[in-house]
Amino acid sequence: MCAIAGIYGGQKAAELIFLAQHAQQHRATDSAGIATTDGAHLYNRAGSGIIQDVFGQADLDKLHGRAAISHLRYSTVDDDPTRDNTQPILMPFEGEEVAIAHNGNLTNVETLIEEFPEGVSLKTSMDTEIILRRFCLANGPTINDRIIQALQGVRGSYSLLMLFPDRLIAIRDSSGNRPLSLGQRDGAFCVASETCALEAIDANFIRDIKPGEILTISEAGLHSTQLPWATDSHQAMCIFEKIYYAHPASVVYQEDKGEEAVADFRFRLGQELEKIHPVPNADIVVGVPASAQFMALGYASSGRSGNFSPSIQRSHYIGRSFIQPNQAIRDTKVARKFGLIRRGRYGLEGKVVVVVDDSLVRGTTAKLLLSKIWACKPKEVHFRSACPPIRYHCRYGIDTKGNAELAAATMTNEQLRQMLEVDTLEFLPLEALHGLITTPKRYCFACMDGDYRICQQANTTITQRI
Amino acid sequence: MCAIAGIYGGQKAAELIFLAQHAQQHRATDSAGIATTDGAHLYNRAGSGIIQDVFGQADLDKLHGRAAISHLRYSTVDDDPTRDNTQPILMPFEGEEVAIAHNGNLTNVETLIEEFPEGVSLKTSMDTEIILRRFCLANGPTINDRIIQALQGVRGSYSLLMLFPDRLIAIRDSSGNRPLSLGQRDGAFCVASETCALEAIDANFIRDIKPGEILTISEAGLHSTQLPWATDSHQAMCIFEKIYYAHPASVVYQEDKGEEAVADFRFRLGQELEKIHPVPNADIVVGVPASAQFMALGYASSGRSGNFSPSIQRSHYIGRSFIQPNQAIRDTKVARKFGLIRRGRYGLEGKVVVVVDDSLVRGTTAKLLLSKIWACKPKEVHFRSACPPIRYHCRYGIDTKGNAELAAATMTNEQLRQMLEVDTLEFLPLEALHGLITTPKRYCFACMDGDYRICQQANTTITQRI
Amino acid sequence: MCAIAGIYGGQKAAELIFLAQHAQQHRATDSAGIATTDGAHLYNRAGSGIIQDVFGQADLDKLHGRAAISHLRYSTVDDDPTRDNTQPILMPFEGEEVAIAHNGNLTNVETLIEEFPEGVSLKTSMDTEIILRRFCLANGPTINDRIIQALQGVRGSYSLLMLFPDRLIAIRDSSGNRPLSLGQRDGAFCVASETCALEAIDANFIRDIKPGEILTISEAGLHSTQLPWATDSHQAMCIFEKIYYAHPASVVYQEDKGEEAVADFRFRLGQELEKIHPVPNADIVVGVPASAQFMALGYASSGRSGNFSPSIQRSHYIGRSFIQPNQAIRDTKVARKFGLIRRGRYGLEGKVVVVVDDSLVRGTTAKLLLSKIWACKPKEVHFRSACPPIRYHCRYGIDTKGNAELAAATMTNEQLRQMLEVDTLEFLPLEALHGLITTPKRYCFACMDGDYRICQQANTTITQRI
Amino acid sequence: MCAIAGIYGGQKAAELIFLAQHAQQHRATDSAGIATTDGAHLYNRAGSGIIQDVFGQADLDKLHGRAAISHLRYSTVDDDPTRDNTQPILMPFEGEEVAIAHNGNLTNVETLIEEFPEGVSLKTSMDTEIILRRFCLANGPTINDRIIQALQGVRGSYSLLMLFPDRLIAIRDSSGNRPLSLGQRDGAFCVASETCALEAIDANFIRDIKPGEILTISEAGLHSTQLPWATDSHQAMCIFEKIYYAHPASVVYQEDKGEEAVADFRFRLGQELEKIHPVPNADIVVGVPASAQFMALGYASSGRSGNFSPSIQRSHYIGRSFIQPNQAIRDTKVARKFGLIRRGRYGLEGKVVVVVDDSLVRGTTAKLLLSKIWACKPKEVHFRSACPPIRYHCRYGIDTKGNAELAAATMTNEQLRQMLEVDTLEFLPLEALHGLITTPKRYCFACMDGDYRICQQANTTITQRI
Repeated sequence: MCAIAGIYGGQKAAELIFLAQHAQQHRATDSAGIATTDGAHLYNRAGSGIIQDVFGQADLDKLHGRAAISHLRYSTVDDDPTRDNTQPILMPFEGEEVAIAHNGNLTNVETLIEEFPEGVSLKTSMDTEIILRRFCLANGPTINDRIIQALQGVRGSYSLLMLFPDRLIAIRDSSGNRPLSLGQRDGAFCVASETCALEAIDANFIRDIKPGEILTISEAGLHSTQLPWATDSHQAMCIFEKIYYAHPASVVYQEDKGEEAVADFRFRLGQELEKIHPVPNADIVVGVPASAQFMALGYASSGRSGNFSPSIQRSHYIGRSFIQPNQAIRDTKVARKFGLIRRGRYGLEGKVVVVVDDSLVRGTTAKLLLSKIWACKPKEVHFRSACPPIRYHCRYGIDTKGNAELAAATMTNEQLRQMLEVDTLEFLPLEALHGLITTPKRYCFACMDGDYRICQQANTTITQRI
Repeated sequence: MCAIAGIYGGQKAAELIFLAQHAQQHRATDSAGIATTDGAHLYNRAGSGIIQDVFGQADLDKLHGRAAISHLRYSTVDDDPTRDNTQPILMPFEGEEVAIAHNGNLTNVETLIEEFPEGVSLKTSMDTEIILRRFCLANGPTINDRIIQALQGVRGSYSLLMLFPDRLIAIRDSSGNRPLSLGQRDGAFCVASETCALEAIDANFIRDIKPGEILTISEAGLHSTQLPWATDSHQAMCIFEKIYYAHPASVVYQEDKGEEAVADFRFRLGQELEKIHPVPNADIVVGVPASAQFMALGYASSGRSGNFSPSIQRSHYIGRSFIQPNQAIRDTKVARKFGLIRRGRYGLEGKVVVVVDDSLVRGTTAKLLLSKIWACKPKEVHFRSACPPIRYHCRYGIDTKGNAELAAATMTNEQLRQMLEVDTLEFLPLEALHGLITTPKRYCFACMDGDYRICQQANTTITQRI
Repeated sequence: MCAIAGIYGGQKAAELIFLAQHAQQHRATDSAGIATTDGAHLYNRAGSGIIQDVFGQADLDKLHGRAAISHLRYSTVDDDPTRDNTQPILMPFEGEEVAIAHNGNLTNVETLIEEFPEGVSLKTSMDTEIILRRFCLANGPTINDRIIQALQGVRGSYSLLMLFPDRLIAIRDSSGNRPLSLGQRDGAFCVASETCALEAIDANFIRDIKPGEILTISEAGLHSTQLPWATDSHQAMCIFEKIYYAHPASVVYQEDKGEEAVADFRFRLGQELEKIHPVPNADIVVGVPASAQFMALGYASSGRSGNFSPSIQRSHYIGRSFIQPNQAIRDTKVARKFGLIRRGRYGLEGKVVVVVDDSLVRGTTAKLLLSKIWACKPKEVHFRSACPPIRYHCRYGIDTKGNAELAAATMTNEQLRQMLEVDTLEFLPLEALHGLITTPKRYCFACMDGDYRICQQANTTITQRI
Repeated sequence: MCAIAGIYGGQKAAELIFLAQHAQQHRATDSAGIATTDGAHLYNRAGSGIIQDVFGQADLDKLHGRAAISHLRYSTVDDDPTRDNTQPILMPFEGEEVAIAHNGNLTNVETLIEEFPEGVSLKTSMDTEIILRRFCLANGPTINDRIIQALQGVRGSYSLLMLFPDRLIAIRDSSGNRPLSLGQRDGAFCVASETCALEAIDANFIRDIKPGEILTISEAGLHSTQLPWATDSHQAMCIFEKIYYAHPASVVYQEDKGEEAVADFRFRLGQELEKIHPVPNADIVVGVPASAQFMALGYASSGRSGNFSPSIQRSHYIGRSFIQPNQAIRDTKVARKFGLIRRGRYGLEGKVVVVVDDSLVRGTTAKLLLSKIWACKPKEVHFRSACPPIRYHCRYGIDTKGNAELAAATMTNEQLRQMLEVDTLEFLPLEALHGLITTPKRYCFACMDGDYRICQQANTTITQRI
């Protein structure tokens, strides 16, 4: 899970992109980088941590020009510590440089590396570099030709931003697995993983970059073309963006659901969950912050299974548990990140409590949180996951290291119930989730159903290979 | 506004106090300090920033012993930069040291300084030092005698923790203006500004330290006594703690309201506000994060003035606006701290929106937030303050620099409405606030009614002066 | 004044270059950078301060490969703070990158910038970039052709190192104004500003890079060629390297003086100075650390003008005064950098003292030092400069901002004597300096005689211009 | 080896003491601390590293008042990392505080700890605290009475500075093992380990604090008294101060040698060494920087055993090898700290070289240096130690961890010669060293002769024990 953003045409592009990325900080916190161009050269800076810690005013001042791209990175345990794994990556191109930022994950890295001509090696340990290097090796007459040439044979998910001195190019793979949206402010066009980043800089959301689209932004305005192999049947948009990753104010996947806000989708998830797995005697419905707030509102909306209750308050002085790189740190932070209301209307004490979570991945956070909930002496605790069981690890962008660490992959519902020490435990059924989507076949549910079809998709309509 | 916490009797007192203070981090973020004792000596460390940034494991390891007090500080513009204005303050006492941490503000500092014997001068620019120095100069036979002697003649508000090698003493002034609560875990007693800090270390809330109480915690257990001048008529507990400062999970002022959680009081504020100033055609009720969430729930609870809507999402990667020391920083941060939902069930677009805020102090944050709200194109915006107009600056602990910067002190409601560019603007009337409290005369409403009676209270029942 | 170093062929090139540059740290302390190559890609890092502070082991570990170049920079007040003025500079070249490090100063920058094709602009504020950009724009069939094309028309001084994935190229301009030497260790070839850097990594000094030479180091070994316009008459090697900049252990300008160590030349300067301006009644001869130590030994060698005395001890915990960027810092540091012996055989008290300095530039350091000397109560103080008066600012590499700040440019000897408050003050005459050199016409004495001939030298033997 | 300094009476005492300590930085580099008083309170700051790194202007600004003491510390491997081992140490005293700084080492720590009353424990792991705590527990009518009471029974070496709000007290133990000198500037009195620190702040050296003296500096001027047990026979001043530790400009032990500068004593050491162990065919005499420079001058002074040659240049960008805390760091730094002249008059190549070192302790630095010397291809290398063999570890202040790591304790001269790979190796005989001192029995030669008499000295003339 990463965040990308770009702008073309504004004054102080680096400052605007900084604000846009701040609004996407929930997606990744390990490193942040910005590349800009003044029309002649590229400038770039990157470092570890959240964007506010990496960039001071002096850094932004050194990022000259009216166009910029940026990347927030969620590092993985596979990272080679001797390599400089920040993005954007820059590479020489036509006497100047090109920069790239990538949200997604390639699934045929070994094959792609073998395809490189003799002598080509990688400088980083990020698959992003593979894409950029294929682009630089390609030899079509136009930049778009080279992009198409570079991307054929590349499997997996990618939303890309490429910055040249005279243009910014946004690309979304034919599956559309990762979101990417287009906005406009004054004379500038903006692209970002989420629409909330557009709104943070007062840009209007225009539309999504379409699955398989190559959108070029330059002084000449917008120019759109398609990856030649892109067909509607390729579409496999990540459902988890809507469930967990995205900001509730964002619109994701306009393709399928129009401009439904993420908050509304989550409300409907909770509403449906209650229909299928109600808790008739419940007093209160508590959402695990921050993602499950709207699911809890939906669950409580019928009035039959308890009232909505913000009984779990999140500390404002600690990061998001899912995006910490190792288990040890996660545990310590979980212990400090929640403040629970024990007494009164919204108190847990003596109540029949429904705890709604967005999902159940490793189960670690849930277990620690439930022990804190029981310390408040509720009468009963019923756990509800607004997402079906996660049984398969994601190959397209999320850092789980195989199925074994997924709680629902190895335990029955009853085992999970006992592990979490709750009175009942239920998941939204996968069919119900399908029912909440206009066209389920446009989505990827691989983490729930194991259908990794993105890996198999043919994207080799052109014969010539680099 | 500061936060204090203490523990006596636990293993790794420094680590427990660190966790307790983390739960009170919402009260102050400018500096953090911890003093501990191993029964023989005192150890202390302090620094600028939030407690997670000031203390690493190596620092906690150097804070030896089974008892500790700690202080989180909200610095003021009066701070002398050449002085070391962190707390706890340590001072020599009986061949060892004594440490003190103070939440509150004295109002007769000049008089107290004049009373010092020839040659006595201050080392810091905090009034806390005046109390400690008076204590060290006092000469009664017992520590409690000296405390009483030190505090007579001291006007203003103070909740104090004092750490000696063999005891921890918690003191709350006779007005009870600042909260202070007692808890217990295993063999240890804990005190903290708020009960949420007790719960963060799995301690049970026992009771409040009473207004005018001196509570000594030692190997002998608890020993309580009273400041001799303390009478019920002195009580003047800060109503703003319940409205704004305290964590919603905390219980404050058990004296008056029993164990009502702050969340419930805020719900009732919103409920009452809606009764008096409804917006019959409203679609949604939005609370300004984080304090006004429960007020918005209360406002929406009748169902007559719109539905509760968490349309304003707070960024998790930025601090609390009120506690930044200067205006310039505040503005920048406000611009980045909120993410608004524009579309759908919880979207602002096209809706008649009620914005419920906890109060209206300077009006700066509200104005910036409202400009962001209007950018989402609501149909109407109605502003409701769950607190009566703030017209008088607080002399007991809050950093406002005089009445002039208080919006409601200089503008009529209509002027405020125009300044904030809203359709209607209303405050909860002061009488209504009184009505929500069991015994209003036990509370201080000085910031609303200008009755600074704490300053006048006689606390000189004992003749001898130091 | 900067320092450059390069290595081709060794294991851990970054670590060796780090050690080599450490030995040249006396030349520049403002920033340090290293670029390496693993045969496929370039890697680079740079930062402010001395090389030990910029590079930790983790940084060296990220600089992969068996070839490296490095630069230590002495920043100038003209530096644009919004630009990234560290070296090596990298630029795209033939699908990969090329890095450059430059010791020297160009004198026709404005003209060179005007010569750029429409649309070419600079990314830094260093003239080094002009050379690199001319190289990248050149279009000859070979790299050497492009280098020659890039350098024709470039006036001023330059010793250059260029790093490509498959070669390292060392270039010295036809004046030979800045030193550059070649060494060998195991299978590796090394180049460095000074031979002391070669010896620091146990490399043998082979020979100087010749004025006008382009030396390519690759898997094929060494390949040398000449800049076509280079003639012996161009030679104008900086005499000040031998007087002040270079390490006493270094050999500079093998062309003229064979392998005479800098220490020996400085000894001869002092010896000659004493012949011309003796102080017959002197007790002791004191050299200003660190540069004038050998001059003082030479001055004292006849035994007629006092004995050598290391009465001024330099603190090991402070940097070199000449290389601090502004006057305010220089003064403070001078006050702390010297420890003087007052008593005994080497004491200043009661003695007739000859103070030998390497030169007199601004006079600031000398004045402060002399006030410390007088505090030791010597009987007489005689000041001797082993270098003729510096009356003209250097245009080729030294940071003086015009003649006005040069003490000897605006004051007579008598005025200087009064300003420094010494009994006598004498300089080595320029003719005497000429006499100590085999072929004076091979040297640049511009700072003493105002002959800026490097600026006028024709280096345009080839017609075609880029 | 530590450095202490104090001042009483000057404006900006903290700034002056900072400059004084900078001049003593050669003695210790691990931590630095300053305590000041404004006549009412004490202020203090300390941290790791050299004093320039610990104190910025903002820190000095917070150290109020006209009197100060300071300490530079050389940490030992025994340091407890969980304790705060910086000095000065502060402790409560008579309602205010007292600060202490200590140069030396106690030898009966266990006994002293057992003597403490029940319940007294230590807060640091420095024996300094034992002295201060004994002082605070003492109960004589005057401060001086308490000091005497505190110090009786304390064995080992101590030069102490104590700071009270109204006075500064300097104490030197009856052995006088560590130096301590008194100076004056304007209205201020200054004390420092070495006279070079006095001169750094333009103070005149008045005299040494005498062995066994307690010197009080206050508004009333100077008041001197003696430790009652002090007799001349106690004197056992560390000879190694004159050989190695002290700055060459300092005067140490005025008691015995008047105001002979350390530089002169070192010259005589070298002179005598050459008389006893000449190298008749030598070409050059090289001193190991920085300490042996004057010994080499002395060795070369007869003209019979080669000429003085500063062939080993020390880097100005690295600290002193002896004072690094562990072996690993020492080795790396040694490799980088020296630059050797290979060619010419002062070159090592082809020469018969005498290497004069101040002493031979572990032999590590010497071995590494000699390997660098041989790399310059000298004809012969003769090693001369200006100090007799070091065979016994020091119990009074130097960090050697037992005799085993002392090269001369376990190897014969021939073994040492082979280990260092030199042609000959000789030490100054102990008797010759005695002969260079007026009254050898006033000195401690324990590291050479194993006579640890300071440990046995009776200092218990007063019966009453605390």
